[in-house]
Amino acid sequence: MSDFNAQPLERLINNFQKLPGVGRKSATRMAYQILGMDKSEAEEFSNAILAVHNQIHRCPTCQNFTEKDVCKICSSEMRDKSVICIVESPRDVTTFEKTREYKGTYHVLHGLISPLDGIGVDQLTVKELLARLNDGSVKEVIMATNPTVEGEATAMYLSRIIKPLDIKVTRLAYGLPVGSSLEFADEVTLFRALKGRTEL
Amino acid sequence: MSDFNAQPLERLINNFQKLPGVGRKSATRMAYQILGMDKSEAEEFSNAILAVHNQIHRCPTCQNFTEKDVCKICSSEMRDKSVICIVESPRDVTTFEKTREYKGTYHVLHGLISPLDGIGVDQLTVKELLARLNDGSVKEVIMATNPTVEGEATAMYLSRIIKPLDIKVTRLAYGLPVGSSLEFADEVTLFRALKGRTEL
Repeated sequence: MSDFNAQPLERLINNFQKLPGVGRKSATRMAYQILGMDKSEAEEFSNAILAVHNQIHRCPTCQNFTEKDVCKICSSEMRDKSVICIVESPRDVTTFEKTREYKGTYHVLHGLISPLDGIGVDQLTVKELLARLNDGSVKEVIMATNPTVEGEATAMYLSRIIKPLDIKVTRLAYGLPVGSSLEFADEVTLFRALKGRTEL
Repeated sequence: MSDFNAQPLERLINNFQKLPGVGRKSATRMAYQILGMDKSEAEEFSNAILAVHNQIHRCPTCQNFTEKDVCKICSSEMRDKSVICIVESPRDVTTFEKTREYKGTYHVLHGLISPLDGIGVDQLTVKELLARLNDGSVKEVIMATNPTVEGEATAMYLSRIIKPLDIKVTRLAYGLPVGSSLEFADEVTLFRALKGRTEL
């Protein structure tokens, strides 16, 4: 197909196709959109891609992405440093922050244990997590990995290392999504909701 | 929402949201994908955006995008210069070329007449089209604008200017899409298919 488009356009289409959920047709539309932009707008886009790589690094404490020395959450006086919520990715931090309910800190694993994909503990930020737990200031660790096989396995593995340190380890509750209907709940979720029922 | 993401990430998300069909969630996923790329890969992406603006310009003849002085089609010995197919956008040229059936040349209008959007003849490449028709070598002009209100109006307008030049003006056939079912054809299409019926 590359015969029909100008070569620089083809190159940009190939780049757009690397993005999640973008096929050949969407990539082509996107490339034409870039071509139709003002030059300054395209330059801004191009620079924004570089900036993300040049300015963002991992927070030395929680391993979340940040452009500061220490991320906003870890450096905030308002956050409870005795609670750490363990998540798979920086996106999960954003999701939690949107609830505006959680006042503790985070630890981003940057992945989950997945032997099939060749991802073991060494590829995750477990070493950095254990270093944070060493000084005795942490009272609770909340496992907030996804409720998938890998998420569960990772949570299990970590809780087994952390519990001996005399730190409370908790897991997010399973149950019915708020606003959903019983009708659409799968059996496992329903079983978990029943098991985790609370008194009214 | 910008409180939760690092600022360079937020900037990139805003840029991705300018693309067609990309909302906040997709843009966020794309930005994280860029962040997860090797630096060299991100640089390639960034440069590809600039290249599209720096290397591509309009072909002086057909006004299609090209990185050459004159585009591949206009400079090809194999193409019939006496037939010009008039299309709205460079994408339409690609669509036609994929059929591998058309051997004439193109003229890209870069838009359609649309008074409501403030787009008149002066914003299109009509002047350049008329210049091509002046030397008498063109025998036929095919109107291949989309079968929409604006596409029809533009085709009508152009055919009225071109016909007095003693050049044959044709329009793409309307009818049932190949492989479709009568059941799904709208009335206007069916009426046009009936009107344009051919002998077997």
